[in-house]
Amino acid sequence: MLIARVIGEVVSTQRHASHNGQKTLLVQPLNLDGTDRGEAVVAMDAVDAGVGDRVLLVTEGFSAMTSVERPNSPIDMAVVGVIDHIELLEQV
Amino acid sequence: MLIARVIGEVVSTQRHASHNGQKTLLVQPLNLDGTDRGEAVVAMDAVDAGVGDRVLLVTEGFSAMTSVERPNSPIDMAVVGVIDHIELLEQV
Amino acid sequence: MLIARVIGEVVSTQRHASHNGQKTLLVQPLNLDGTDRGEAVVAMDAVDAGVGDRVLLVTEGFSAMTSVERPNSPIDMAVVGVIDHIELLEQV
Amino acid sequence: MLIARVIGEVVSTQRHASHNGQKTLLVQPLNLDGTDRGEAVVAMDAVDAGVGDRVLLVTEGFSAMTSVERPNSPIDMAVVGVIDHIELLEQV
Amino acid sequence: MLIARVIGEVVSTQRHASHNGQKTLLVQPLNLDGTDRGEAVVAMDAVDAGVGDRVLLVTEGFSAMTSVERPNSPIDMAVVGVIDHIELLEQV
Repeated sequence: MLIARVIGEVVSTQRHASHNGQKTLLVQPLNLDGTDRGEAVVAMDAVDAGVGDRVLLVTEGFSAMTSVERPNSPIDMAVVGVIDHIELLEQV
Repeated sequence: MLIARVIGEVVSTQRHASHNGQKTLLVQPLNLDGTDRGEAVVAMDAVDAGVGDRVLLVTEGFSAMTSVERPNSPIDMAVVGVIDHIELLEQV
Repeated sequence: MLIARVIGEVVSTQRHASHNGQKTLLVQPLNLDGTDRGEAVVAMDAVDAGVGDRVLLVTEGFSAMTSVERPNSPIDMAVVGVIDHIELLEQV
Repeated sequence: MLIARVIGEVVSTQRHASHNGQKTLLVQPLNLDGTDRGEAVVAMDAVDAGVGDRVLLVTEGFSAMTSVERPNSPIDMAVVGVIDHIELLEQV
Repeated sequence: MLIARVIGEVVSTQRHASHNGQKTLLVQPLNLDGTDRGEAVVAMDAVDAGVGDRVLLVTEGFSAMTSVERPNSPIDMAVVGVIDHIELLEQV
């Protein structure tokens, strides 16, 4: 999984029927220092995340399809957790 | 999923039988600012998208195979939505 | 899928039993302008493609395994079509 | 699989129900010489690895989901082994 | 699949039970001219390959899991063939 931030939503009327009723989020993957990690991607929401949340992002199809409990829905990325905090090892 | 634009079609007579009757689109992944994101790729059409449309692109095999409801068809990318608009978080 | 050109064959005697009788192609992914897109990869042939052909390449395991109708054969790339031509949108 | 080091943990309350009770590790992929290989990623723990351990990391969804024996849990990376040592071929 | 060379072995005692008895190889992906292609990765052995062999490497989970006939074993890369030789197209 990657750490990411929700930065928007994608609105699409003409889409795969299985996607109806799913929130489609625009998320920006992040490095540990909070800087952008590549470009933003589009992911289905599996945990009712909101814009601005720091989240866990799965980036693989079978996992993403599982996350929303719609096995026949073509999804390849999903938000599966909202991060409270990250505990980093002290690097002595 | 990635944001992409349909820029053409690929015509192929000698192909996997399961692909017959499927529209094979040439799509260019895009960054949020509309610039090209890497090189164009080839994707099956699952939502009757047309050339020029801004679309949602799944880039994983199992998801793509699901999108066209042909579970035995070898596909690894598919167009699963036509984007109306994108709502971006205000970055205050 | 990616656009690619068949540039050779790989010969292997000591290999997974499920691969026997399958043609193993060396293919070079291509950009739209015909230049090389990264390095060559190795793919199973699902459509009787020949050296020199411009082809459609799936680059995902489940899709590739499906393409040769051998669900228990470990394959992660396959040639699934020979390209006749590509119709590009006029960029006015 | 990649070689990686466990460098922390990710704490998340609002998450996919199937993730409850799983330790979510922050791991840094490594090159053979021990230097960082890209940025850190987030992986489920399947072998009770601890912070500081050098581990084997699977980076594919179906494999990762299998590793924790929760087939309906959306995971795309998992720690599946703690490395004792690596035997390198003498490069004469 | 990628062309690679076996350059070592990874030894791990504390690991996923399904991995027991499997040889875990360190393999270096190669370009066609024999130079290194990125960094070394770790793969399960499905064809009794040895250190120094030039091999075919699958880099996708479902395919890799299939290769060792252990469908419940978390693996994302496997060595599935030892290469005898590669026939390259004459580039006239």
